[in-house]
Amino acid sequence: MRLRNITDARKTLEKHTETVILDPTQHKGQWKRQFGNDNPLFLEIGMGKGQFICGMSDLLPDVNFLGLEKYDSVLLRAMQKSIEVPRQNVFLLRGNAEYLSDYFADNEIDRIYLNFSDPWPRKSNKKRRLTHSDFLDKYKKILIDNGEIHLKTDNRNFFEFTLQHMNEYGMKFDHISLDLHSEEPDCNVRSEYEVSRSAAGFLIYQLICRF
Amino acid sequence: MRLRNITDARKTLEKHTETVILDPTQHKGQWKRQFGNDNPLFLEIGMGKGQFICGMSDLLPDVNFLGLEKYDSVLLRAMQKSIEVPRQNVFLLRGNAEYLSDYFADNEIDRIYLNFSDPWPRKSNKKRRLTHSDFLDKYKKILIDNGEIHLKTDNRNFFEFTLQHMNEYGMKFDHISLDLHSEEPDCNVRSEYEVSRSAAGFLIYQLICRF
Repeated sequence: MRLRNITDARKTLEKHTETVILDPTQHKGQWKRQFGNDNPLFLEIGMGKGQFICGMSDLLPDVNFLGLEKYDSVLLRAMQKSIEVPRQNVFLLRGNAEYLSDYFADNEIDRIYLNFSDPWPRKSNKKRRLTHSDFLDKYKKILIDNGEIHLKTDNRNFFEFTLQHMNEYGMKFDHISLDLHSEEPDCNVRSEYEVSRSAAGFLIYQLICRF
Repeated sequence: MRLRNITDARKTLEKHTETVILDPTQHKGQWKRQFGNDNPLFLEIGMGKGQFICGMSDLLPDVNFLGLEKYDSVLLRAMQKSIEVPRQNVFLLRGNAEYLSDYFADNEIDRIYLNFSDPWPRKSNKKRRLTHSDFLDKYKKILIDNGEIHLKTDNRNFFEFTLQHMNEYGMKFDHISLDLHSEEPDCNVRSEYEVSRSAAGFLIYQLICRF
């Protein structure tokens, strides 16, 4: 998700070090110390405007949440939402999924969320999809053994690609839903995009899996 | 699919030995001899009224087709369709998927089709689903190495179960479609049930996979 660039976004982000971390490389291997406790670390890659991560952090106060977002303008929106209610268990990180191993040590992350990732529909762009094996290699490295990936999307072709590609990679599927909202569990937190796409009649797909 | 029992179905079937084989155990390991050629053998398990197998056998004249059906009344319908146009590459078999290894030798079958199998929705009946691991064991035995299974269904929960269960079994997914009719390939032959379910607005799912 990309918003128009917002003037002075960077300056505003720099003022909110209680929530925003602009250089996550400085905390590699030290994230639990940053939170000051030993709780599990759940990472959302491509956080967008932050509704999901804020909702999850309220639902699971004994989990630490990290939201990764590469665009300053989008990170600013998430920051604005995050500071409405001060939370002890959330940090918003500026960073790129390409460089996950610069931000996190091996086995440092307990769970990864991928919500409505860019489907990169053209075949020539398939290496950019966040479920391409190049990215799976990175996730495997930073996740604990048996750490789960929780993925949601409304893009059929992206979900087909993901199922096929993760199967080929040898990943285990713990749960598949081809219409999440028809049997929505109480613990499902909807992102902004999920709300609008579901209202527009699109099916929401979900996969929970691990290496 | 179960039709009302049709009086004298069995007697009619017995008269059509050119198409119907009521005791497939007698041909175990000898199916190519039965066709009189060395063409590949494709097996449909749960053939229903025969529209799919007749369409496929017309489309692929250099393949031999075997349609397995357990109910006499349904087999009779398929037979009636099959004899409208005499075909050299089809036999309709009365039999039960439980006993596949009584009908076929190891590695005798080149491909299996599962079309709109009974989803057995109750959890207590999951061992009856044709994609349960007990059945996968049987398919693996009779299929050649890398022999494909082609599955179609309109039942979402059955398809979720199938994807998860086949992944757990270690099967490879060659192709997944979550809406087959939106990008329907020319070679897709629709079964009677597929036509009516699609017209009623149901999505058709497809999986092509192998052991």
